[in-house]
Amino acid sequence: MTRNNISSLNCSIANALNLIGEWWTILILREAFFGSCRFEEFQQHLGIARNILTARLSKLCDSGILVRVPVKEGAKRHEYKLTAMGRDLLPVLIVLTQWGDRWLQEADGAPVIFIDRSTGKEIVDIRILSEGGRELKARDLALLPGPGATDETRERLRLILEARESREKK
Amino acid sequence: MTRNNISSLNCSIANALNLIGEWWTILILREAFFGSCRFEEFQQHLGIARNILTARLSKLCDSGILVRVPVKEGAKRHEYKLTAMGRDLLPVLIVLTQWGDRWLQEADGAPVIFIDRSTGKEIVDIRILSEGGRELKARDLALLPGPGATDETRERLRLILEARESREKK
Repeated sequence: MTRNNISSLNCSIANALNLIGEWWTILILREAFFGSCRFEEFQQHLGIARNILTARLSKLCDSGILVRVPVKEGAKRHEYKLTAMGRDLLPVLIVLTQWGDRWLQEADGAPVIFIDRSTGKEIVDIRILSEGGRELKARDLALLPGPGATDETRERLRLILEARESREKK
Repeated sequence: MTRNNISSLNCSIANALNLIGEWWTILILREAFFGSCRFEEFQQHLGIARNILTARLSKLCDSGILVRVPVKEGAKRHEYKLTAMGRDLLPVLIVLTQWGDRWLQEADGAPVIFIDRSTGKEIVDIRILSEGGRELKARDLALLPGPGATDETRERLRLILEARESREKK
């Protein structure tokens, strides 16, 4: 959690983790999706220390994932709401849940099931899909430098590709 | 990262985070998907302290996400390979990447792009889908207790539903 110069990694995973890659942070977001909005609700449901909760909520607000809104117009007390950036984290939470369900709950099964309200049917497992809707595994993917790639990233991707080609020739 | 009794949360997200919810752990997995398998490769590419890397790799092996295999038959040196459980984390990494690309890279754009090798086209953004393939947002989902739900979880889900219904009536 404490790499000094995180942006040097030129990596969206690292950048994302810099904001949300902390145990409590993800669980705070889970609570927000469950409908919690007040400090006391987060505190009660998670049993988290108040000073840690304060720090995590502040960081989430500073980074634009949550926003503080007054309970009523002009009120001093406020609630925490997910922003569009925050709501866009739902797939991250669901994919973590589904992985946990598949690999860590073998005896009991899933504690919670997500259903489509309009049909009552379970949502499908989140997968990586091609444009045409085919499921893709790691071997089906290739990595290309994007518009934000640094020279270091380009070189790294070139080496990854080279190593892969040499493995596949064997 | 240090809740004493994590299993008391009865939550697959919490269980998943207990294994992988650590900055370095996710980046080690990223490297494994990029093809790294030796200690020195992980160390070099991440610039991580050797003692931390040793601890993280051990935890990943203990939890069944990586497995140690001898470099050659009978060799003492070993490599680290992703197990099926580990390979199944790829959607977690991709969804984190895509979220980071969307929200944290506005100026430069994505450092790395994932393409479908067979078509050369970019993979689609990972979304939550209904059985019929419709994209679902938070408001479209409902939560039901699963087979592994404790009484506490059932009660919690009942309260969440109640609070939601009262919000929607307003």
